[in-house]
Amino acid sequence: MSAKLHGIFTPNIVPLAEDGSIDEPELRRYVDWLIDHGVHGLYPNGSTGEFTRFSPEERGRIVKIVCQQAAGRVPVLAGAAEANVHETLTACERYAGYGARAVAIVSPFYYKLCPESVYAYFREIALQSPIDVTLYNIPMFASPIDVPTIRRLAEFERIIGIKDSSGDMAFMMRLIAAVRPVRPDFTFLTGWEAVLVPMLLIGCDGGTNATSGVAPELTRKLYDLTRGGQIDEAMRLQYRLLELFDAMLYSADFPEGFRAAVELRGFRVGRSRQPQSERQQIDYVTLQSVLQCILAEFGYIEAPALVCPPRTGNIDQDRVRHITAAVVEQLRQRGAI
Amino acid sequence: MSAKLHGIFTPNIVPLAEDGSIDEPELRRYVDWLIDHGVHGLYPNGSTGEFTRFSPEERGRIVKIVCQQAAGRVPVLAGAAEANVHETLTACERYAGYGARAVAIVSPFYYKLCPESVYAYFREIALQSPIDVTLYNIPMFASPIDVPTIRRLAEFERIIGIKDSSGDMAFMMRLIAAVRPVRPDFTFLTGWEAVLVPMLLIGCDGGTNATSGVAPELTRKLYDLTRGGQIDEAMRLQYRLLELFDAMLYSADFPEGFRAAVELRGFRVGRSRQPQSERQQIDYVTLQSVLQCILAEFGYIEAPALVCPPRTGNIDQDRVRHITAAVVEQLRQRGAI
Amino acid sequence: MSAKLHGIFTPNIVPLAEDGSIDEPELRRYVDWLIDHGVHGLYPNGSTGEFTRFSPEERGRIVKIVCQQAAGRVPVLAGAAEANVHETLTACERYAGYGARAVAIVSPFYYKLCPESVYAYFREIALQSPIDVTLYNIPMFASPIDVPTIRRLAEFERIIGIKDSSGDMAFMMRLIAAVRPVRPDFTFLTGWEAVLVPMLLIGCDGGTNATSGVAPELTRKLYDLTRGGQIDEAMRLQYRLLELFDAMLYSADFPEGFRAAVELRGFRVGRSRQPQSERQQIDYVTLQSVLQCILAEFGYIEAPALVCPPRTGNIDQDRVRHITAAVVEQLRQRGAI
Amino acid sequence: MSAKLHGIFTPNIVPLAEDGSIDEPELRRYVDWLIDHGVHGLYPNGSTGEFTRFSPEERGRIVKIVCQQAAGRVPVLAGAAEANVHETLTACERYAGYGARAVAIVSPFYYKLCPESVYAYFREIALQSPIDVTLYNIPMFASPIDVPTIRRLAEFERIIGIKDSSGDMAFMMRLIAAVRPVRPDFTFLTGWEAVLVPMLLIGCDGGTNATSGVAPELTRKLYDLTRGGQIDEAMRLQYRLLELFDAMLYSADFPEGFRAAVELRGFRVGRSRQPQSERQQIDYVTLQSVLQCILAEFGYIEAPALVCPPRTGNIDQDRVRHITAAVVEQLRQRGAI
Repeated sequence: MSAKLHGIFTPNIVPLAEDGSIDEPELRRYVDWLIDHGVHGLYPNGSTGEFTRFSPEERGRIVKIVCQQAAGRVPVLAGAAEANVHETLTACERYAGYGARAVAIVSPFYYKLCPESVYAYFREIALQSPIDVTLYNIPMFASPIDVPTIRRLAEFERIIGIKDSSGDMAFMMRLIAAVRPVRPDFTFLTGWEAVLVPMLLIGCDGGTNATSGVAPELTRKLYDLTRGGQIDEAMRLQYRLLELFDAMLYSADFPEGFRAAVELRGFRVGRSRQPQSERQQIDYVTLQSVLQCILAEFGYIEAPALVCPPRTGNIDQDRVRHITAAVVEQLRQRGAI
Repeated sequence: MSAKLHGIFTPNIVPLAEDGSIDEPELRRYVDWLIDHGVHGLYPNGSTGEFTRFSPEERGRIVKIVCQQAAGRVPVLAGAAEANVHETLTACERYAGYGARAVAIVSPFYYKLCPESVYAYFREIALQSPIDVTLYNIPMFASPIDVPTIRRLAEFERIIGIKDSSGDMAFMMRLIAAVRPVRPDFTFLTGWEAVLVPMLLIGCDGGTNATSGVAPELTRKLYDLTRGGQIDEAMRLQYRLLELFDAMLYSADFPEGFRAAVELRGFRVGRSRQPQSERQQIDYVTLQSVLQCILAEFGYIEAPALVCPPRTGNIDQDRVRHITAAVVEQLRQRGAI
Repeated sequence: MSAKLHGIFTPNIVPLAEDGSIDEPELRRYVDWLIDHGVHGLYPNGSTGEFTRFSPEERGRIVKIVCQQAAGRVPVLAGAAEANVHETLTACERYAGYGARAVAIVSPFYYKLCPESVYAYFREIALQSPIDVTLYNIPMFASPIDVPTIRRLAEFERIIGIKDSSGDMAFMMRLIAAVRPVRPDFTFLTGWEAVLVPMLLIGCDGGTNATSGVAPELTRKLYDLTRGGQIDEAMRLQYRLLELFDAMLYSADFPEGFRAAVELRGFRVGRSRQPQSERQQIDYVTLQSVLQCILAEFGYIEAPALVCPPRTGNIDQDRVRHITAAVVEQLRQRGAI
Repeated sequence: MSAKLHGIFTPNIVPLAEDGSIDEPELRRYVDWLIDHGVHGLYPNGSTGEFTRFSPEERGRIVKIVCQQAAGRVPVLAGAAEANVHETLTACERYAGYGARAVAIVSPFYYKLCPESVYAYFREIALQSPIDVTLYNIPMFASPIDVPTIRRLAEFERIIGIKDSSGDMAFMMRLIAAVRPVRPDFTFLTGWEAVLVPMLLIGCDGGTNATSGVAPELTRKLYDLTRGGQIDEAMRLQYRLLELFDAMLYSADFPEGFRAAVELRGFRVGRSRQPQSERQQIDYVTLQSVLQCILAEFGYIEAPALVCPPRTGNIDQDRVRHITAAVVEQLRQRGAI
């Protein structure tokens, strides 16, 4: 039997080439960099990886590339949700062949299903999947999976864990209280790194966190500090992570802010498959200047030539300050002031 | 230039064979039946048609079958939303080739996009599509398209109308007030037949209504009566339609109730691609017995052998009554009472 | 037995004096004006009347003044919700003594109660009230009253009707379908004049509409035209009413926009009991300039000296246009341009 | 200057006499008991105290009784929200006279106000209150107070803290990050004891927790253990508290479950001012049998004569088990089985 999943898994973004296709070399380089920087696992075809914006074939190719490149150095949790149970199972088989450790399957989306339907869906998959399955609960995007349903699904050996992105700590505690006594091997991963340290303290085994694709050193350090009992230091970092997370999450439609930050770490991410208006393209540049300041404070990248104005914790205000500072800097450089 | 869209379009369900594949002969028979019973148009790959549960290839095949079978007798509005703009445009081209009158494109779903992103998405499509485009607003399932965004999008000639399934009458009025003065040719279709007559009275051009796939005679009659100024008679029927609609909508996860009713009209619909638990399969049978009573009262089908208990307007109560009545009937038949 | 309630009831605002107390003479003058302009009834202590911002004594005084001033010319529906059943019943007795036709009681608010609790609350009142009771459903502010609960409550003779401010037309239809067969005398009033004409067409008996406190001629005309079968003309006015309604509803926290408009009709409304920031006070002035243009187009008041810029249907944009126009006008007057 | 608020404050329920009036002797006895069992402070007129169901006079009397009885042993945080700013300020003055340490003022409710209005409301109070003010954010019942608004309000010296009942840990962190640097003396209290330990770990100063009115020993112990760095033991208790909390919160309309539990601790709480249907009265008895088992396990009260069935963590299921167990027990006692 495989070891229990634990640690920080990266739901990696997918670099795109000029023509919008998957930039395979850059994705491979990114996978190496993530592993080198300490992530415990990889999670292709997550929400951060924009799985809905790729074709079924592309999703398969992404998993294949990631599995090949990881080459057993870290486990791969492969997002395998397809249009229906039949095709999801086909993906499960394929990803098992690629060497994925397990698949992660998001609750059915678009239609809002009742708990009984959510149960029936995962039950069918659990009965037929040739590879371990992790449930993925993200109620802001997909049909919610409630505690009693997860408790019922935990009776299937094939279902080995859950990733929850609700960010609701009491929900996670109810879940752990309901499932751990009957399935001590069940893995609980949080997708809400805004409160990663508290989530680890209540008993989560780790997380699948978009921020780990931007600052893998940081999420790893948070994890290690918490596991090592250095709560105060972990909490100080947690507050700094929250500022970074909020800046990436609330400044643009998800996951564009995370893509902007990965670019700052030195990767060609390419243009999003979701078109951006001109106004949004300007916002993107401004956002990157804020993110550069935050990431430079961590020491991950070079500080911008431009002086970073003090931050207020209010993203909108901070962006205005950056724009103002940038304009002033320009004027100064031109000798205008 | 083509004539403005109007009337009742059927977002057809897709009959499935034993093995879960598209039952092409039955779909063709169903298309013929719908046209023979007075629908003004067809709308494959709508939410009722479970477009998300088919593969891209299957979605293309569904449109092809429907266009071929309609053979110009009624216009086809083809659901063309795919994983991204590029693939959506490929579908647009293909569907134009199949003879679709226009495509309908749902707002991006899964991710909840801001209005600016929704605008950028449809703008890109409007600029490149070789076929007329209808926007599809269904805020309970997909990113909402608000009035100012629709107003901006109405500046593109390629965008010729909107289907709104919010059911919010004031929203539809705001929309008509904002767009009709600048685009008199723009089509407004409601997806909420619960209030079809009032929607027509405020100025809608028609609807794309799942109920028309079950009772095309009824929606057609409502449409004709309203257009003919027979408001009182139309309203009486509207109340009866509401009862049927509610029974189909709230008794099971959408669109299972509508599939159950289409089966009662004499079509093999097959089992849903969304697995059903045992409990749900029993509910399905009970629901059909309620629906049979309602449809029989309209005279569309035979009344059940079993006496129909009076309905209370409360679906859950009505189902309990049916079960009780059925049990009593069984006992009576066996001479037990 | 009293006649069934019908027509348009005005949930009147309460004019306030400089010191924040009730401006009784102005309230009496306002009541006269409303009756003279055709409202079918009055409804003190509604949401528009800011009942929660007055003390229990003040609420009693408001009802007393309105009943006295109406003096039987039109029926008074008195908002009687107090902190608990006991005090609500005390208010019911008092208002019966003042000559109110019935009381209107909002569903319990602050706490969100389950349907069973909502039922128990109104049941208690129904059993003990010495005056007829109208239920008041306003789910955006108070615990919702659902269809089955209303159906159960309709079994009490004392409960004679419902005012629904959800604006959901299908909900109103379900309600009428469930209750009218068993209680033909039950009154259905809509609080959502955005769709007043359609609501009357589906069978509502009238409305309690804040807009009738601003433009009683308009709501009366809509009512009379619809009752007289002149649907097209009614609908044209309905669209114009919607523009006015939206401008009042969405430009400020409710009911400040309606108070601003009543002031334009020539009443001293005084400053709100809800404090306004400086920014909000400036917005208030701008809003009034937009409202003045709309009301002048109806011919109810004088047009502003300033030219009214064309409206776009987008309130925010319209307000910016007005500000720009006002600034330009100022500059022109000062000879600056 | 007074010391910063910290620790666990009890939002006490109000015992009622047979006739529905405040049971003063029992309230005094309850206050003594709470102080004896280690609460750090008292919080009359909180949501648990059903402040909206009392008259203004009664609210004043409740504060007076609690302040008198506390007699300086613990600080009193007095809920002072009234119908409008004027009356709220009158209450502030009165409660200062009674010896309250500070007042707590809930954001305006019923109407949903925009942030600017919420700011204007509290600003007015901050400028005129003779006593320190704590903001009370409870977005499920009242207008939300967002982070930027709290940051602005923290500029008023009179505003000394916030009680947040959203239960959103990331929200609390954003709040602390925004306010603590500029107001190190500002107090952060959580109203969501489901996650009390994690809230203390991220930096909260304490909580105002309904559970402390039922099990003051427990909340005190959680607080002391966390402050003392015994995180593991604190977390074990946190999970047990969560079970108790959920049983009280989700088994009845708030705060009826908490009142049922206080009764088990030996206080006559009387019947709620919110009427209960017969069905609800039966539920109340069943709920108490579940709560008795939970509280007995803590050793706070005697175990029931009836054997406690094992709990599943699913409240509804647990209640069914209790009913079944009770029926079996009855039959056994009668010798029927």
